[in-house]
Amino acid sequence: MQTMYQTMNDVELAAAIDDLEARVAEVKARELKLDMARGKPSPEQVAISRPMLDLLSADSDLTDGGVDCSNYGCFEGIPSARALAGEFLGVDPSQTLVLGSSSLLIEHDSVAMCWLKGTCGHAPWSEFSAAHDGARVKFLCPAPGYDRHFGITEDLGIENVPVRMTENGPDMDEVERLVAADEGIKGIWCVPKYSNPTGDTYSDETVRRLTSMKTAAPDFRIFWDNAYCVHDLYDEGDELLNVFDAAREAGNEDRVIAFASTSKITFPGAGVGFVAASPVVIKEIAHHLQAGLISADKLNQLRHVRFLPDLDAVRAHMRRHAEFMRPRFECVDAKLHEGLDGTGCATWTHPRGGYFVSFDGPEGSAKRVGALCREMGVTLTPAGATWPYGEDPHDTNIRIAPSYPSVEDLSSALEVLVLAVKLVSAQLALEERA
Amino acid sequence: MQTMYQTMNDVELAAAIDDLEARVAEVKARELKLDMARGKPSPEQVAISRPMLDLLSADSDLTDGGVDCSNYGCFEGIPSARALAGEFLGVDPSQTLVLGSSSLLIEHDSVAMCWLKGTCGHAPWSEFSAAHDGARVKFLCPAPGYDRHFGITEDLGIENVPVRMTENGPDMDEVERLVAADEGIKGIWCVPKYSNPTGDTYSDETVRRLTSMKTAAPDFRIFWDNAYCVHDLYDEGDELLNVFDAAREAGNEDRVIAFASTSKITFPGAGVGFVAASPVVIKEIAHHLQAGLISADKLNQLRHVRFLPDLDAVRAHMRRHAEFMRPRFECVDAKLHEGLDGTGCATWTHPRGGYFVSFDGPEGSAKRVGALCREMGVTLTPAGATWPYGEDPHDTNIRIAPSYPSVEDLSSALEVLVLAVKLVSAQLALEERA
Repeated sequence: MQTMYQTMNDVELAAAIDDLEARVAEVKARELKLDMARGKPSPEQVAISRPMLDLLSADSDLTDGGVDCSNYGCFEGIPSARALAGEFLGVDPSQTLVLGSSSLLIEHDSVAMCWLKGTCGHAPWSEFSAAHDGARVKFLCPAPGYDRHFGITEDLGIENVPVRMTENGPDMDEVERLVAADEGIKGIWCVPKYSNPTGDTYSDETVRRLTSMKTAAPDFRIFWDNAYCVHDLYDEGDELLNVFDAAREAGNEDRVIAFASTSKITFPGAGVGFVAASPVVIKEIAHHLQAGLISADKLNQLRHVRFLPDLDAVRAHMRRHAEFMRPRFECVDAKLHEGLDGTGCATWTHPRGGYFVSFDGPEGSAKRVGALCREMGVTLTPAGATWPYGEDPHDTNIRIAPSYPSVEDLSSALEVLVLAVKLVSAQLALEERA
Repeated sequence: MQTMYQTMNDVELAAAIDDLEARVAEVKARELKLDMARGKPSPEQVAISRPMLDLLSADSDLTDGGVDCSNYGCFEGIPSARALAGEFLGVDPSQTLVLGSSSLLIEHDSVAMCWLKGTCGHAPWSEFSAAHDGARVKFLCPAPGYDRHFGITEDLGIENVPVRMTENGPDMDEVERLVAADEGIKGIWCVPKYSNPTGDTYSDETVRRLTSMKTAAPDFRIFWDNAYCVHDLYDEGDELLNVFDAAREAGNEDRVIAFASTSKITFPGAGVGFVAASPVVIKEIAHHLQAGLISADKLNQLRHVRFLPDLDAVRAHMRRHAEFMRPRFECVDAKLHEGLDGTGCATWTHPRGGYFVSFDGPEGSAKRVGALCREMGVTLTPAGATWPYGEDPHDTNIRIAPSYPSVEDLSSALEVLVLAVKLVSAQLALEERA
C-alpha cells in the first residue's frame, strides 16, 4: 500500500513536510514529558487492590487448609492458591505450583531446567550442540512478541527464530514446517490470550495445531504464558481453548508448560506466580526448583486467596480494572483513526484485552518515529523490542502501552505519535525520490 | 577415647544392654511423636513478628525514598531495604541487591551465573571440564555443614569436596593446600557465624586466610551465607570480622559473594533476601538475574523496613527471639550433660547463637541412633545430611534442631536421644568383641 505522501507530487510533498516540521517545532516548544513505554497500570488503577493489604493483620488466622503460612514448608504452594491456579490455567490443582511474585522467574527456571538437566529423560538441551555437529538449540518466537521472553532464551545461548504473528496466533504453516524439519527447535514462546503486543488471541485451530503437530525434537515444549487470561476489556472476552485438554487429546500432555500471575491483577511485582504442567513435568519442575527454594512466600499467597478466593472474585475485580483500561484503549483507537485514517501510513490492532496495541508504520519508519517522538517528549517502547535480538526486519513495529498515562496525557501522546508517523512517512517518500 | 561400654567386662556389658533395651521398650510404649529435625522457630516464636502485618494497610503510604512499592520497577530493591542490607552484610548499600523471600534462591542463581556465564571475564565454569581433560569443577564444603548448600552445587554437577570444620571455621591448612593445587576448585560454602550445624563462628584469622589465600583458580568465589549474623542467644554475641574489608585489604574484593535474609527474623519463607558483592560482581549478578525478573516484591520489603528500620531495631527484635531460643539450647546442653557426662559416648557443641547443636557419637553410630530414635517416636535430621552426598565418613554426626518443640517436648526428645546413643554405643562395644 502507498502512503498519501508517496502519491503527492514534489511540490505538494515539500509543502506537507514544511507544515509537519512546523507542527513538530510547536510540540517541542511545549516540553512534554509523556510515557507510553511501560506495560504497567496507573497508580489509580493499582489502588483498587489496596483493600487486600487489610486482610492479614497481627491477629489473623495465618493457616490455609491446615498449612501454617507463617513458617517454612509447603513448597508446592498453599491449597487455596493451588486451587485458584488450577482454575486460571485449566488443570487439576495437583498439576500446579504456586511460587513467588514473578512468573517470569518461573519461566526462566523452567527453560533453565531443560537446558541444564533435560526433560522427561531426554538429554539436557545444553548438550545438543556437541552431539549434533555444533547445531544450535533454537526457540520459535512469534513476532512481534514479548521481549523478556526472547531475553530468557537469548540469555541461555538459545537461538531465537522469529515466526510471523497473525490474528489467530503464530503462522502455523510456518511453525509446523520448521518444527518438523529441525530437531534443534526445542520450544516456542506463546502469549496465547491478548498477546503482547498485538492483543490477538490464539484460535482454537492454532491451539490444536500447536499441541498436535509433529516435532522433530521429542522434547519440544510450548511455554504458554497466559499472562492476560482474565484481562478482558469487555464483558464478552476472547475465548481461549484449554491447551492442556488439547495436548492430552493429541497424546502430547507433556508438551505444555503454562504460567500466569496476579501481577496485573493485584500489585505489579508483588503478586503470586503460578506454573502448571502434566503430572510428570510438574514433578520435574518442582524437583528442579527445590534445589534453590525451601518454600515461597505463603503469607502473600494467603493474602491473595483471601482477597480473590476464586475465579468469580477475580473476574469481578478485573471488571474494575477494565474501567481504567477500556477508555485508554478506546482513546488509542480513536486518536489513531482520527489522525491516520486515509493516510495509508499505518495499521494497528484492536485488542479486546491485555495491555498493548501493536502499531505498524511504513517500512523503515519505526526507529525514526521512536526517535522523533522522544525529541517531542514522548517515550515509546524502543523500536525493535518486539522482535528477537531487537531486530525488526522491516522496521515497522511500535508497541503502544496505554495503561500508565492518564487519558488526557495519552491523548496528547498519541497526537505526537500521529505527527511523528506522518513526518517520517513524508520524509521516506521524499528520500525514495532522491 | 573409649566409651564406658568398651571398658566393661562381658557380664557388665550384657547387663547394661538388657537394662537399656528394657528402657527403650518402655519409651516405645509411650508412643511419643517429637521432632528435632527442623531448623524452624516454634509458632509462639514466629508470632512475635505478627505486628509487622499491621504496618501496611489500604491507606498506607506505599512509597520508599520516592519509589512506588506497589508497581513494577526498582529491580535492585527499595532504598531503605538496601540500607538495611548494607548494615547486615557490612557494605555500602550500592553493593547490595534486595530481592525476594529466599536467600537460598539467590545463592543458587549466583552459582548458576558462574556456571553458565562465568564471572569477571573468566570462562563459564560449565566449560572448565572440556578444557581440562574432563577434570571436574569442585566446591569445598566445610563439614558438618548445611545440606542445602551442598545440594545447590551437586544439582549443577559440581563435585562437593568435604573439608573438616573446626571451632574456628574450616580447617584452613587443608583449604589453602587444596585451593593452591587445583584450578578446578572454584568456590567454598561458608556459614561464617553460628555455623550450621556446629554453631561455631569463624575466627578473624580464618576470615583473613580465606580472603587472602592464593587460589589456582583466578575466579575462585567464597559463598558467604551469613544466615545467622544477628541470631545471638546472649547479649555478648560472637564477633565476625567484616569479610569485605578483609577481602579488599587482600586485593581480592571480587572473591566474596555474601547473603542474608530475614527468614528467621520475621516470617520463615516470607522474609526478604539480600546479596552483596564487590561493585563489579554485584553488577554481574544484577545483570544475570534481570533476565528472569522485572522486580521483586517491594511491598514485602516496605513492610520489613517499617517494622525493622535499622540494625538497632533488628537487634532489639532478636533479643525477643533469644528468649525463646536460649532455654531450648540450655535444655539441650543440660540434658546431654546429665545423660552422657562420663560415658565417653559423645561430644557436642555449645553454640552462643544460630539454630543448631552438632552432636557426635561413637564411630558408626549416627545412622543407628537416628533409626532407634525414630522407633521411639523422635525424628532427627537424617544422619549424614550434614555431609556432601549425605556421606558422613565416620557416621558420627547428628544435627540437633531445638527451636521448634516446646522445652518440655525437647527435654523428652533429648532423653530419648541419650538412651539411643547409650544403647547403640553398648551394642557397638559388644559387636567389637564378636
